[in-house]
Amino acid sequence: MLKKIMLTVAFVGTAYCGYQVQPNGITVQEVLGNAAKALFGYTCDVVGCSRTDSGVHARCFCVTLAKKGSNALETTIPPERIARAMNAHLPDDISVLTSGLVDADFHPRYDVVSKEYEYLIYNGRERNPFYAERAWHIPTAIDGAALSRMQAAAACFVGKQDFSAFRAVGADTEPGDAVRTVYAASVERVGDMISFRVRADGFLYHMVRIMAGTLVGVAKGSIAPEDMPALIAGKDRRKMGVTAPACGLYLNAVFYPDQT
Amino acid sequence: MLKKIMLTVAFVGTAYCGYQVQPNGITVQEVLGNAAKALFGYTCDVVGCSRTDSGVHARCFCVTLAKKGSNALETTIPPERIARAMNAHLPDDISVLTSGLVDADFHPRYDVVSKEYEYLIYNGRERNPFYAERAWHIPTAIDGAALSRMQAAAACFVGKQDFSAFRAVGADTEPGDAVRTVYAASVERVGDMISFRVRADGFLYHMVRIMAGTLVGVAKGSIAPEDMPALIAGKDRRKMGVTAPACGLYLNAVFYPDQT
Repeated sequence: MLKKIMLTVAFVGTAYCGYQVQPNGITVQEVLGNAAKALFGYTCDVVGCSRTDSGVHARCFCVTLAKKGSNALETTIPPERIARAMNAHLPDDISVLTSGLVDADFHPRYDVVSKEYEYLIYNGRERNPFYAERAWHIPTAIDGAALSRMQAAAACFVGKQDFSAFRAVGADTEPGDAVRTVYAASVERVGDMISFRVRADGFLYHMVRIMAGTLVGVAKGSIAPEDMPALIAGKDRRKMGVTAPACGLYLNAVFYPDQT
Repeated sequence: MLKKIMLTVAFVGTAYCGYQVQPNGITVQEVLGNAAKALFGYTCDVVGCSRTDSGVHARCFCVTLAKKGSNALETTIPPERIARAMNAHLPDDISVLTSGLVDADFHPRYDVVSKEYEYLIYNGRERNPFYAERAWHIPTAIDGAALSRMQAAAACFVGKQDFSAFRAVGADTEPGDAVRTVYAASVERVGDMISFRVRADGFLYHMVRIMAGTLVGVAKGSIAPEDMPALIAGKDRRKMGVTAPACGLYLNAVFYPDQT
């Protein structure tokens, strides 16, 4: 049976140097490739929906699997059973949630319509062991007024804008311009946890982490939410907040054309 | 300044052989004792609210600290600052959330009025890396009807009853009888996660884990919720479900007389 397979994968990024294979450390792509080779007996092309930084997590990361140099897998395992079969060869911190057939010309990165990221800020006074390496710990109390300011600032992220102000210094060599469309951006608090979610058609390097750092600057009063539109228009990275640490960032969802 | 201090502590139990010091492995009590010695410069008595099994977690575990053989700490650190000072000497998986003065005759175990445990069951088809060692993975779908059966069975746990049927085999040498009062027991589902919470004046060895295993037996249809009162009255451990794994169990809260 010949088929190209798409996997949705969740991973705790703490132990990995990001998704994409690189020479300096173990990556999620490499571990998935090794599992596929162990399962199918040949080397596979593992193509992901995105690069991710070291320590970043994913709740739903999309990859395609095919025999190296071809556009299909050779296997008798039914498509929906590949998830469990792959999991038998994967460590605890990576799991394939679902598997299924996709068209041979589907590309998990080029075909992305939008992606949703979530950034978690743990706002308890002392560190919480359940959120170690899974959220950014801000021990200064963020009260209701500060949360409202964060929400007002996040609302300014929505729209088709040039997001140069949220691009990592040195990343202006990225191909194309810095115009992206943010479809939704929101800040919510549940107990000690503050969640910032943002959905866009694309993201610049470190964009979500700089947004999260900027929102914390807004909470602490160093950036006024009313200034946000002018700050975005000013395209000056130095006027925004710090780059929030990787450990709080989660790729939540990836959307493709045929999905609602 | 002389004072006896109570700490509330959260820990991820995965790396520990339970709370209580024992010869065969590292325990939470030992790590807390080492941190206290590093901080205060002398050996401390670290007294906990409960024993816990290897791999069990705590969101709020209460311990008292005093200089060994005395009933107070000798320190100039203000009571509420001891939490952060202790955290500087603790690993990522143990954190002191709060610290404060308590009466010299307060005992964190003998003075307990009630405790609340939570047991987490992850009910996704494939394993989820974020819940590895933090929930019991039951891949068989638990639908609405099965959840209702679990809720009906859990309701039968409430009341002053002899809970011998939920006591680990061999633990019948525990002092006292097996009569406990369960004040509340509930089962809730949020997304892929099913949470069983139970509050009681005391718990037998493995009681919550056998209750959780029994509820999963009820979900799968091997135990009928209508039979639960008779099964409890029958006091036969063998008629109940399996002992659920330690990794899903959380000590959520400990209540003392002066707390609401």
